Amino acid sequence: MKKLKFAVLGAGNGGQSISAYLTLKGYDVKLYDKYDEVVAPLIEKGNIELRGVSLNGNAVISVITTDISKAVEDTDIILVTVPSNAHSFIANELAPVLKDGQVIVLCPGSTGGALEFKKILNYKNCSADYKLAETTSLFYACRAKEGVANISGVKNILPIASLPSSDVDYIINLLDDVYPQLVKEENVIASSLNNLNAILHPIAVLLSTSWIEATGGNFKFYYDSITPSVGKLIERMDAERMSIGKALNVHVKSAADSLKTYYSATGDSIYDMVRTVKAYEPISAPPSLNSRLLFEDIPMGLVPMVELAKLVSVNVPTMNLIIDLASQVLEKDFREEGRSLERLGISNMNIDELNKYVSNNFECTQGGK
Amino acid sequence: MKKLKFAVLGAGNGGQSISAYLTLKGYDVKLYDKYDEVVAPLIEKGNIELRGVSLNGNAVISVITTDISKAVEDTDIILVTVPSNAHSFIANELAPVLKDGQVIVLCPGSTGGALEFKKILNYKNCSADYKLAETTSLFYACRAKEGVANISGVKNILPIASLPSSDVDYIINLLDDVYPQLVKEENVIASSLNNLNAILHPIAVLLSTSWIEATGGNFKFYYDSITPSVGKLIERMDAERMSIGKALNVHVKSAADSLKTYYSATGDSIYDMVRTVKAYEPISAPPSLNSRLLFEDIPMGLVPMVELAKLVSVNVPTMNLIIDLASQVLEKDFREEGRSLERLGISNMNIDELNKYVSNNFECTQGGK
Repeated sequence: MKKLKFAVLGAGNGGQSISAYLTLKGYDVKLYDKYDEVVAPLIEKGNIELRGVSLNGNAVISVITTDISKAVEDTDIILVTVPSNAHSFIANELAPVLKDGQVIVLCPGSTGGALEFKKILNYKNCSADYKLAETTSLFYACRAKEGVANISGVKNILPIASLPSSDVDYIINLLDDVYPQLVKEENVIASSLNNLNAILHPIAVLLSTSWIEATGGNFKFYYDSITPSVGKLIERMDAERMSIGKALNVHVKSAADSLKTYYSATGDSIYDMVRTVKAYEPISAPPSLNSRLLFEDIPMGLVPMVELAKLVSVNVPTMNLIIDLASQVLEKDFREEGRSLERLGISNMNIDELNKYVSNNFECTQGGK
Repeated sequence: MKKLKFAVLGAGNGGQSISAYLTLKGYDVKLYDKYDEVVAPLIEKGNIELRGVSLNGNAVISVITTDISKAVEDTDIILVTVPSNAHSFIANELAPVLKDGQVIVLCPGSTGGALEFKKILNYKNCSADYKLAETTSLFYACRAKEGVANISGVKNILPIASLPSSDVDYIINLLDDVYPQLVKEENVIASSLNNLNAILHPIAVLLSTSWIEATGGNFKFYYDSITPSVGKLIERMDAERMSIGKALNVHVKSAADSLKTYYSATGDSIYDMVRTVKAYEPISAPPSLNSRLLFEDIPMGLVPMVELAKLVSVNVPTMNLIIDLASQVLEKDFREEGRSLERLGISNMNIDELNKYVSNNFECTQGGK
């Protein structure tokens, strides 16, 4: 098998860290970002210094570009590392340049990433024989700034689902050398509902509004802001998420079980458990409410969860409350700008049709290469 | 005119301060509290020491008792200084012992205090020829503990409304020697809507949930917790309150105008203005969410405001949001336990009937003495 070639789309924390890691592993990587001001300093520096708990060294990325067609040309795997709000932009840009056999992985998909991506590719009449998958989180806890990337933690287990779900084994196998921690998720409904950020972040931020604004976020995010009452509200919302999963016949891991599995957390409540997660200890609150913890995790997380709940008539009062609270506090209609069933391409489906849609392949994505 | 005799019902901060003040002014005062553990130390001490910006001295209260009939016997004015959650209890206890000519003043009424009080007195077939009024706030900023009361501020202007509204001049005149700051409020709908606590407190507390629980309220309440986003949400809710007032044909003062009038605040936004209110500077956040700032100001403030909004079909999404948020965070059905139109005795009225009800006297409250 010839050595895989990668495109990494999005040169933020995740994109820089992943590009550097893959390059140091000996793979050819082309790194794309939409913004000149992100790409220019990386080109000027000439390499990405990777530090931390994964590989260490100076990675010379083969191509760094703002031209997406150049970035994905002659690559096997396209890792999409932009915030999920930008998935639709990337899908629109990719549609005309995708080639047969390319594998797209959204890292992560948030909630409904793969569904939205496929909807757009179909809408744009993309005829390539691609494969599409999404993870439920990023591979790393990492930070990067202008060519210096630091990986402070690597997830031991990272679920991935493909659309259709039948492609997932092929993709896991393909990525095994670089990301052996990938494990199969049932389908993209399961991976969408297993977006824990949507459950943990918005409540913790919104109920810390005054603290964030009065201090510029000068406190620990998970440790300080998830107090007993905040933890209980998170548990209520998490129970709603579990109910949606049950109604949609997919296995959803509770927040408590996720914290135990991924972070070896201990304790009886979310409040207790969060405090046993070492990886959360150094994470500070955002300096303002203008944060992905709200602007990504609500429209690309809670909103599509509420939409899925509608599809199966499950009541989700806490999710609705938090979307409304965020919309009023931030004076922004998150329902309007979020991922609706329509945007996910599943607005006229019943449960059976949805399950078929995520399992089977109706269009052109039959084979690999 | 013979010297007035007072009953003060409720021996908390307000009740102790008022009793001591009136006693030092030379009036006969009987002080009641429901709880032995509140009354006992006051009786043992033998006096209330009054300090601060009003009168100073040791006030020997003529009667301190847990027997409400003893407290109100042979008095002219009954000042009700319990939290408004306890107004219904006091009304039920007073119904059989009220005498012709007695004047009841709820200090303050929160939202709907006088309406609820009258509903209960009617329901209990009280036949006394009483008068009933409510202020929009307490006379003082004060604190008291076991017989030592400190008045840190005296309101220069304090609106009062009577039910029916025609009694208010008589009551203001009666109290002129002790409380010359009382000014006439149109009716109890106006005084009910001019409950600023309901607008300022719940939002500021709820959006400080994590800060309160993480630090035990170790920050300034108004100054620190009313940040720009919190202030803007308060302004949204305040606009809803103004809309209810407009629909009900009563004059309601905006929060901004109230801060200017009562506290000489300056600035263009609630956020700016709050920081110019000297009286707010020393006030700390509550040590936990178990606070009157939620447990009184929501069921006795926001809930009846939303009920009044229903009566005139005014949309109040921010009020509803905050009630729902509090209900979920505190796991308590505040709508269920709050003042409904039914509890206020106005559930089957249209606007005209309500205006007549608060202006005129349908039952037994025709004359004074």
